[in-house]
Amino acid sequence: MARVSQEHLDARRRQILDGAARCFARNGFHATSMQDVLKEVNLSAGAVYRYFSGKDELIAAIVTEVLGGIREAFEDAARHSPPPMPDVLVGRVMTQVLGMGGETGKYGLTWEGETSFPRLMVQVWTETLRDGELSALLREGFGAVRDAWVKVVEGYQEAGVMRADIPAEHVARTLIAAAQGFAAQQALFGTAPAEVLQDGLRALMSVRG
Amino acid sequence: MARVSQEHLDARRRQILDGAARCFARNGFHATSMQDVLKEVNLSAGAVYRYFSGKDELIAAIVTEVLGGIREAFEDAARHSPPPMPDVLVGRVMTQVLGMGGETGKYGLTWEGETSFPRLMVQVWTETLRDGELSALLREGFGAVRDAWVKVVEGYQEAGVMRADIPAEHVARTLIAAAQGFAAQQALFGTAPAEVLQDGLRALMSVRG
Repeated sequence: MARVSQEHLDARRRQILDGAARCFARNGFHATSMQDVLKEVNLSAGAVYRYFSGKDELIAAIVTEVLGGIREAFEDAARHSPPPMPDVLVGRVMTQVLGMGGETGKYGLTWEGETSFPRLMVQVWTETLRDGELSALLREGFGAVRDAWVKVVEGYQEAGVMRADIPAEHVARTLIAAAQGFAAQQALFGTAPAEVLQDGLRALMSVRG
Repeated sequence: MARVSQEHLDARRRQILDGAARCFARNGFHATSMQDVLKEVNLSAGAVYRYFSGKDELIAAIVTEVLGGIREAFEDAARHSPPPMPDVLVGRVMTQVLGMGGETGKYGLTWEGETSFPRLMVQVWTETLRDGELSALLREGFGAVRDAWVKVVEGYQEAGVMRADIPAEHVARTLIAAAQGFAAQQALFGTAPAEVLQDGLRALMSVRG
């Protein structure tokens, strides 16, 4: 039997994940069968099951990758010292995350369609309500992203650009909520540029009571 | 045949909607059958089908009610002149919306459990991706809430408490996004008081670049 290179294995895995993500974004988790995935990636059952035992494992792999992508996008954006102001930081992360679905996306998944990522995200949330393993995965990913935001917010507070009498965790949760809700709006009502969210945060930062 | 009072009809309809909402919040739309709903409300098929032709109509009725509740909560909170600052306004609306699921909720649905509303919301979003009618309903409701926020934001801008060179619609979308994302966090990671979001917005309003 011919030896198969690691590179080949990785590319094959990538091909399957991207095809599955396209199916899921298009038709949802429930309405997508493993047969649909096989057809989409044009591979035999044997070839696909070598990598993934079934739909649940595909979903978990995609969720893991997306969460990793969000974390990486955030770390990229926050690397600057001092970190950008909240509006710019959230705007950059949102641009990168929404771009994850594009062919040029640097964070793994490369399925097409600008609203693919938000559509997948909303579906993952619903799936999480009924799936303990997926829920644990999401909780861990959320915790990591929240901790990273908390550090950035503490930086704002220490530098005196944000009032320091409010728990940094509340600010972190609020900024993540704005990003999550904005992504949900894309899934529900169609694409909008990340600048909309960045503008909104900038306006909030200008409020004088 | 005995005449049935309007009051009785309304109470019966209420009973069915509340029972269906409990089932949906617990098990999701897909895993809930009309049989489950009949069992939950302890009524015959004939009694229930007199009000609702099936699951889709129940879901649409619940979504309509929830959207109406959100709009009403917003109008209540914004009625004050001048309107409260964004953090207070969002905090009030969020408190009322999260309370919609409680027995004391004034906005219609009265199913139990503090996280029922967010769980239903996330499920509705996913359902919307595949259901054109539901999507139109949600789009209309979102449009109405966004327009109401736009008016409030324009009020801030005219009063000089917020910079006026940013489209009010971007600020409205951002504030709604923060509320939507915060509600999603409740569904995914458990209950948190609306004060967390209010704090976060207040901290953002304090940022000095």
